[in-house]
Amino acid sequence: MTALLPATKRLIDGLFHGASSAVARTSLARSITLVESTLPRDRFQAELLLDHVLEQRKALAASTTTSGTPHGHAASFRIGIAGPPGAGKSTFIETLGLSLTKKGHKVAVLAIDPSSSVTGGSILGDKTRMTHLSNSPDAFVRPSPTRGTLGGVAQHTNEIVLLCEACGYDIVLVESVGLGQSEIIIDDTVDMVMLLVPPAGGDELQGSKKGIMEIADVVVVNKADGELKTPAKHTAVDYMHALQLARRKEPEWKPTVKMCSAREGDGIDGVWDVLTEFRKTMNAVHKIEAKRARQSSKWMWNQLHQELMAMAKKNAYVKHEAATLAPDLAHGFISPRSAARKLLEDFLAHPKNK
Amino acid sequence: MTALLPATKRLIDGLFHGASSAVARTSLARSITLVESTLPRDRFQAELLLDHVLEQRKALAASTTTSGTPHGHAASFRIGIAGPPGAGKSTFIETLGLSLTKKGHKVAVLAIDPSSSVTGGSILGDKTRMTHLSNSPDAFVRPSPTRGTLGGVAQHTNEIVLLCEACGYDIVLVESVGLGQSEIIIDDTVDMVMLLVPPAGGDELQGSKKGIMEIADVVVVNKADGELKTPAKHTAVDYMHALQLARRKEPEWKPTVKMCSAREGDGIDGVWDVLTEFRKTMNAVHKIEAKRARQSSKWMWNQLHQELMAMAKKNAYVKHEAATLAPDLAHGFISPRSAARKLLEDFLAHPKNK
Repeated sequence: MTALLPATKRLIDGLFHGASSAVARTSLARSITLVESTLPRDRFQAELLLDHVLEQRKALAASTTTSGTPHGHAASFRIGIAGPPGAGKSTFIETLGLSLTKKGHKVAVLAIDPSSSVTGGSILGDKTRMTHLSNSPDAFVRPSPTRGTLGGVAQHTNEIVLLCEACGYDIVLVESVGLGQSEIIIDDTVDMVMLLVPPAGGDELQGSKKGIMEIADVVVVNKADGELKTPAKHTAVDYMHALQLARRKEPEWKPTVKMCSAREGDGIDGVWDVLTEFRKTMNAVHKIEAKRARQSSKWMWNQLHQELMAMAKKNAYVKHEAATLAPDLAHGFISPRSAARKLLEDFLAHPKNK
Repeated sequence: MTALLPATKRLIDGLFHGASSAVARTSLARSITLVESTLPRDRFQAELLLDHVLEQRKALAASTTTSGTPHGHAASFRIGIAGPPGAGKSTFIETLGLSLTKKGHKVAVLAIDPSSSVTGGSILGDKTRMTHLSNSPDAFVRPSPTRGTLGGVAQHTNEIVLLCEACGYDIVLVESVGLGQSEIIIDDTVDMVMLLVPPAGGDELQGSKKGIMEIADVVVVNKADGELKTPAKHTAVDYMHALQLARRKEPEWKPTVKMCSAREGDGIDGVWDVLTEFRKTMNAVHKIEAKRARQSSKWMWNQLHQELMAMAKKNAYVKHEAATLAPDLAHGFISPRSAARKLLEDFLAHPKNK
C-alpha cells in the first residue's frame, strides 16, 4: 500500500480553496475522475482522498453544531431527477439550478448513466448542455456521466455526492440519464426522486412507467406552455389519479403533481416549494438521515462483497484447490456446492494470502 | 455439523435400488425435495447425500472406463427446452420422452420455473402433465418445478441433474417454464438449448425473442399438422433467415430449424437426429465437457460468494464494527468504501468467528 501521493494532496488542498473558486472546481473535477478510475493505484488514492475530505467535513460539522443545522438534519439536499427522453430534463435542471444559485445555494449536477458502461460512450451532449449553469461560479456541472457497471456507477455516484457536499455544494441534483436501470438505482443515491414528464396521453402511464411511479416522491409535468398547456393539465390529472392508486412510499408524504415550463421559467418556484416541503417533512421525522444511513450501509456491504470475492479468487490456496477440483467438477463427480465448501475452508484457513 | 442421518442414508440406498424400480423413483423424488430445501439442517444433509451419490458415480465411471463411453465424452445428455406458452412443450416432451424410452434410454424431465419464486405457486398443471411418460418405468417426471430465487433455482437444477444422472437417467430434459428469466439461465444448466415455437407470423420473431434466439442451438416449429402445416413452413423459413443473421454460438455448429407435430408424432425422429448430431459434433471437440466445466465452475464460485457473505454478515467483529461506523456512515463522515475496508480487515483477522 502506498501513502497519500503529492498529487492527491494537492487535489485535497484545491478542494478547500474556496467553494466558488476555479481552483476548487478544477480540483473537484479531477477528484471525481480519480474516484471513477478503476486502476488499483487510483482506487487507493481515491479512498485516501475521500477519507481526508470527509474527515474535514466531520471536523467542520463538529465546530458548527451550535450555529449550524439542527442535529439529525442533513445540511445538504440530494434530489434525483428521472424521466423519459423528451421530458426536457436538461432545460429543467438548468432553470432550477440557476434559480437556486440566485437564492444563494451552491448547486452540483451529476448524472447516472449505466448505458455508457455498455457503449463506452455517453448519450449526453456533454459540454454543450446547461451552458448557463456551467458558467455560474456557484454551480458545478459534471459534463461526463459516470461509467462502469450498474452497481459501480451508483457506488461512485454516492462517493461523488459526498465530495461535492464536502466542497460546499448544498444542493446536489442527480439526473438519471440511462433508461430503465438508472431509474432503479437513483432511489438508492438521493434523498428524494422527482419524475419529470412531458405532456402526453393518459395511455402512456401504463406499464413501463409503473416502476418509476413507485419510487417518485413528486411528479412534474414539464412543457406546460403554449399549445401544450391543456395537454399538460390532462397529463397532470392522469398522474394524480395514478398516484392515488399507487402504494405510498412513506406514510408522512403524499406524492403530488406539479406543472411547469422550464423553458419559460413558469412554475419552477412552485416545484421548488414542493421539494423543500418534502425535505422539511421528512427531516422532521429524521427520515432523510435514516434513508442516507440505509443507502450508505447498502454500498458498504456491496463493497465488502466485491472485495471479499476478489480476495478469494486471488487466494493461492483457493486457486490451487479449484484447479485440483476442476476435473471432478466437470465430470459431475463432485457437486458445485461441495466444491464451494472446500474452497471456503481453504480461504478461511489462509484468509490473508495474496 | 451433524453427520449423515439414517433417513438420508436410506435415501441413498434407495437411489441405487435399480433405476426403474419404484423404490429408486420415490427415493429420487425425496432426494430432490431435500436438495431444494432451504432449511440449514436439510441443506447439510443434501450436501452429504450429493457427496455420497456422486462418489459412487465416480467409482462406477472408473470401473467402466474401458467398456463405457470414450474418455472426455459425457455419458448423459442434458437438453434444455425453451419456448413461449402455447408452443406445446408438454406434449412435445411427452412424445419425445416416450420415443426415447422405446429406444432404451432412461429419461428424466425437470422444469426451471423462477416465476414460482414470486407467486409461491406453480404455473404448471403438475401431476396432470405428461401422464403417459410419468407412468413409464423408464422415465422420471418431476411434477413440481424448483422454487427459490433465480440463482438458487439454477443451482438446485444443476444438483438435481447430477442426482438423476447418478440414478441412471442418461437423457435429462430441462424445460424452461417461467417466462423471460428462466430462458436466460437454462443455457447455464444444459448441454444444448432447443427453442420450441408454434406456427406464427414472421413479425413475431422480433424483439422479445432475440435473446432466446441467441442461445438456441436448434429451433423446432411444433404443431406442423392439419391447417397449421403451411403456416409452420413459413415460420420455419422465417427462423432460418433469422438464424442466418444471428451471431453463431459455436463455430462447429450451425443452428438449424426443424418441423414436427408432437401431437401426431410426425418429425420427432428428425428432431432427435439433429439433437444427437449436435451432441456428436460437440463431443468430438470436447465442447460438451468444456461447457459443463464452465457451468459447474460458475455455480461453485456463486456458492462461495454467498457463503462468504453470509459468514461476514454473521461475524461478531464485523457486526460490532458496522454498528460503530453506522453514525459516521449515515452523516457522510466516512465513505462506504472506506467503511467496507475496515469491515474486511475485521473479517480477515477473525474469519472463523461465528
